[in-house]
Amino acid sequence: MTEKFHGVIPPVVTPLTADGEVDVVSFERSLNRMIDAGVDGLFTLGSSGEVAFSTDKRRREIIENVMRIVDGRVPVLVGCIDTETNRVIEHAKEAKELGASAIVATAPFYALGGMAEVERHFRLIHEAVPDLPLFAYDIPVCVHTKLPGNLLVKLGKDGVLAGVKDSSNDDVSFRFLVDDNNKAGHPLTLLTGQEVVVDGAYMAGADGSVPGLANVEATGYVRMWKAAQAGDWATVKKEQDWLAALMRIVTVPSGVAGFGAGVGAFKTAMALLGVFDTNQMPDPVCPLKGENVEAVAGVLKEVGLTLAKSPQEVSDSTK
Amino acid sequence: MTEKFHGVIPPVVTPLTADGEVDVVSFERSLNRMIDAGVDGLFTLGSSGEVAFSTDKRRREIIENVMRIVDGRVPVLVGCIDTETNRVIEHAKEAKELGASAIVATAPFYALGGMAEVERHFRLIHEAVPDLPLFAYDIPVCVHTKLPGNLLVKLGKDGVLAGVKDSSNDDVSFRFLVDDNNKAGHPLTLLTGQEVVVDGAYMAGADGSVPGLANVEATGYVRMWKAAQAGDWATVKKEQDWLAALMRIVTVPSGVAGFGAGVGAFKTAMALLGVFDTNQMPDPVCPLKGENVEAVAGVLKEVGLTLAKSPQEVSDSTK
Amino acid sequence: MTEKFHGVIPPVVTPLTADGEVDVVSFERSLNRMIDAGVDGLFTLGSSGEVAFSTDKRRREIIENVMRIVDGRVPVLVGCIDTETNRVIEHAKEAKELGASAIVATAPFYALGGMAEVERHFRLIHEAVPDLPLFAYDIPVCVHTKLPGNLLVKLGKDGVLAGVKDSSNDDVSFRFLVDDNNKAGHPLTLLTGQEVVVDGAYMAGADGSVPGLANVEATGYVRMWKAAQAGDWATVKKEQDWLAALMRIVTVPSGVAGFGAGVGAFKTAMALLGVFDTNQMPDPVCPLKGENVEAVAGVLKEVGLTLAKSPQEVSDSTK
Amino acid sequence: MTEKFHGVIPPVVTPLTADGEVDVVSFERSLNRMIDAGVDGLFTLGSSGEVAFSTDKRRREIIENVMRIVDGRVPVLVGCIDTETNRVIEHAKEAKELGASAIVATAPFYALGGMAEVERHFRLIHEAVPDLPLFAYDIPVCVHTKLPGNLLVKLGKDGVLAGVKDSSNDDVSFRFLVDDNNKAGHPLTLLTGQEVVVDGAYMAGADGSVPGLANVEATGYVRMWKAAQAGDWATVKKEQDWLAALMRIVTVPSGVAGFGAGVGAFKTAMALLGVFDTNQMPDPVCPLKGENVEAVAGVLKEVGLTLAKSPQEVSDSTK
Repeated sequence: MTEKFHGVIPPVVTPLTADGEVDVVSFERSLNRMIDAGVDGLFTLGSSGEVAFSTDKRRREIIENVMRIVDGRVPVLVGCIDTETNRVIEHAKEAKELGASAIVATAPFYALGGMAEVERHFRLIHEAVPDLPLFAYDIPVCVHTKLPGNLLVKLGKDGVLAGVKDSSNDDVSFRFLVDDNNKAGHPLTLLTGQEVVVDGAYMAGADGSVPGLANVEATGYVRMWKAAQAGDWATVKKEQDWLAALMRIVTVPSGVAGFGAGVGAFKTAMALLGVFDTNQMPDPVCPLKGENVEAVAGVLKEVGLTLAKSPQEVSDSTK
Repeated sequence: MTEKFHGVIPPVVTPLTADGEVDVVSFERSLNRMIDAGVDGLFTLGSSGEVAFSTDKRRREIIENVMRIVDGRVPVLVGCIDTETNRVIEHAKEAKELGASAIVATAPFYALGGMAEVERHFRLIHEAVPDLPLFAYDIPVCVHTKLPGNLLVKLGKDGVLAGVKDSSNDDVSFRFLVDDNNKAGHPLTLLTGQEVVVDGAYMAGADGSVPGLANVEATGYVRMWKAAQAGDWATVKKEQDWLAALMRIVTVPSGVAGFGAGVGAFKTAMALLGVFDTNQMPDPVCPLKGENVEAVAGVLKEVGLTLAKSPQEVSDSTK
Repeated sequence: MTEKFHGVIPPVVTPLTADGEVDVVSFERSLNRMIDAGVDGLFTLGSSGEVAFSTDKRRREIIENVMRIVDGRVPVLVGCIDTETNRVIEHAKEAKELGASAIVATAPFYALGGMAEVERHFRLIHEAVPDLPLFAYDIPVCVHTKLPGNLLVKLGKDGVLAGVKDSSNDDVSFRFLVDDNNKAGHPLTLLTGQEVVVDGAYMAGADGSVPGLANVEATGYVRMWKAAQAGDWATVKKEQDWLAALMRIVTVPSGVAGFGAGVGAFKTAMALLGVFDTNQMPDPVCPLKGENVEAVAGVLKEVGLTLAKSPQEVSDSTK
Repeated sequence: MTEKFHGVIPPVVTPLTADGEVDVVSFERSLNRMIDAGVDGLFTLGSSGEVAFSTDKRRREIIENVMRIVDGRVPVLVGCIDTETNRVIEHAKEAKELGASAIVATAPFYALGGMAEVERHFRLIHEAVPDLPLFAYDIPVCVHTKLPGNLLVKLGKDGVLAGVKDSSNDDVSFRFLVDDNNKAGHPLTLLTGQEVVVDGAYMAGADGSVPGLANVEATGYVRMWKAAQAGDWATVKKEQDWLAALMRIVTVPSGVAGFGAGVGAFKTAMALLGVFDTNQMPDPVCPLKGENVEAVAGVLKEVGLTLAKSPQEVSDSTK
């Protein structure tokens, strides 16, 4: 039933105009480009989709655009990211109303609690939207809670969770989770949020991946997934090596860290490649400028991609 | 100009019915009790005011109730707590519309960033509601960023921040902050969020305190503040010792941690004292029950408070 | 020059008698068993070799035993683990005197510092024993510092470091490190300290592995390495899956955490397999007993290994 | 019985020559100066006494010098800081042999474990040197374990611990510890390791303090302790405010963090005041130089202290 969520499901990066509005034209270009590349689904309003930066109105605008543009060609997972249960449930109901194929929620954050609260949180969300597949988003770097494998599998067996998007960067736990999930009859679809060690996750038995970098270059991830399905590990490794080289766009900017460097580099690369019109970032983050744009351009050229715009043009695309 | 925010300004705990609705009758009882005790202000929708658990509709409902009940008797600070700038600004505008005397905002959370984003975040909030005094809420245990003293003082001198609510539990940094603020001409009103070491904060030069425990017992905090103003440190110490003994209500519950133990104990104590009708907690947190309620009752009796309800009655007040 | 450190280099677990003395007979059995299985080297006095628990006299005793038993059949790396530079240098000089093939040192720990101190630390160690290859041991879970890839490669190019033992559980950084090292002409031998995601590390380009679990079962790791060298990734995956199932010995004990669960399970498994005479642990850690020994035995049987001793006998092997 | 450990007990900073040897002449000057100022004891080989940087031979040399110079005038506590139990016991036996009045040990560090190991660790140390009062050193910033109050009081009641040196910077826990200790009949002598919020610790009921800054200026801490004993809190506050201003020597250096900034500033101040001949630091830490020495000098002058040497002379005192 959740097999439709296997494969490459990029977390959708949201294009903005220089004024900070949703850039619908760039959005169409980007989503169509990923679908044409053969992705198996799309995940909107994930961490790299700037969900935390978007007002409720903006979130609705993003979902509506994605649903309209995708138009059923691939399943759409929608991030319902907020601090605690009742706020998440509001997003979940809206996502359902707008046609989401599945929703994705993290552990509660901001307030301190324990695993009893985490478990009850997911159960209450599921009760509120019982027909909608619910993915747990394991992202301790943002929510400061690591979801334990035994809890995830238990919630899978109980029909609460349909899957997990694992962005914990804990590949040891992920392998044990894959194993526990298999022993339990595979109730969970397990997706890795990794970008440069997806090959290892596939060897471990992941059902798919959610790589932010696929916004920049989806074809490599699609080829890697197909090769993994075919057991052609040499190709998997080759594709991963190339994508890891491309991922260096996020390590070359200087003087900026976190979201501004990571998603900032994705948007910059997409602007350089002509997919986005600007590399505008949501407040309070500033877009990459000057030498940082040049550094991203340098990586793109090094891995063999062709620029549609000059670094100067991209630097000038925002205020 | 911000002297009206000096003194004891409790973060308001929100009473719920057994069904999870705002309990207006208990709310009136509690707020009036604190005002009658002589508090200098109230801070609604802080962390212990369950801001993170409340939907936007619920937040509005809480603010409206507080403003109506307080009716100008003391200033009301309103917490505008959300992940990133634009979401916070929405809350800030609503708080302004509803009559807040000041607003309180944390550093951005969920997405990773650096100090450049933190600074720009506060500047953008201030630009959006320039007339409303803005307090920075330094609470690294929730937002995982410690606000540096030099940034706070700089934003104070620039007229961006009116004050700081320090819940960092870093008394060394707080003392240096007090000193730096004095050297800069005291642009910031500095409030400690401590409960059991408020005496030390007053010796360090705090302009007031924001103790959650004052929901249970405001009179002691009012006496302590007056004694500190008078330089009567022996009384300050005596009151703090008694309040520290009372604060043990948050350490006696077992099998529960974080918000469920802390605010859970506050609500339980207030129910035992007849201030709240129930000790109901917001989802996904469960209220204290059975032995944990008895343990809280034991602390109340030990420090000499008279129970209005039995532990059994309080246990039975929720489902 | 450092190619002799490629391949499978288990961190040697130290057998103790029930009285806490080094168990020389078990030590011979274990080391010979790993060498017969085809390991490419041995790393003594690593974290799982109980270096932190051993007095200087005990450390010397362990090194002497290892050197005597190994007798030049494979290279021996010696852990020189201590808080700060001068203490590490003492261990390094002793390791050299006792015939170590290479030494392994972590970043400084206990005192707080920055990257300038880390860099100078490694440079001073190298100056003290310039002829001995020096490996950096990246183990933030113990020393609370993550060694940055650019610093490691710089120290490699400068001839300070011969290699890295990566126990950071940060596979993303490791892949970038491999790439940076290759771009710099491969000055560093890069060994992963992983146990259940070694397949991914090999795909990323690791020069070898240092898996504690190889003390229990070296043959699987040797087969995995040979398959990786041959590009036979299907076999790599198969061996890793089996070893990951075996690694569950460290997750089944209850009521114990950290070293007591991890190395405690290794020693228990080795006792059950007849390699060690006891599963004695160094003070203040207690050996696994009763149901925890049975749980470890259950995992061994599940993956098809044959027990030489009953769980009861192993429980009785210590006081 | 442990009342002799009440009051001001500075952690002794160790003077080095420019060649990194123990500077005996400066050591005599500094220890005599503190004893003349009226301190109640001395604590050698604490964190700021560079215990982690000192080889075993160097540690012995430091203890011998301290014992000889102090010559029974005040009690001497000796830090026995090492990773795990057996290594600590070696130091403890040596400290006893050299005439220590008491020893001080942290929780185990480097290897991961739980509270069972922490408790057994302190019990085994006490068993090894049963006649020597044992202080627990609660310093999570270095050892990454916070000692729980209930464990400390339990070990106090069992006669294992004589006291606690609290460097946890968690004043809330400290106040609860004081209270629990009083309820248990005061088995533990409770010393705060704070420097700028000692006033608060005294109001909370601390039995004394262990301020590193007292190496620079002991007289203020002695006056503060006497005032606290007399209940003269206005004087306590006045002295603390002045000492907090002096403590700014550790925040003014730039480009250096942790031990190099903290103890680096202490040594620099002591050199400027003519107490130490150099501000030499132990490897791999570099001494403060140039503008950082000037910044420290500026603070000293600002609080009214007279320099015996120029910043240039102190900069030139090391290589």
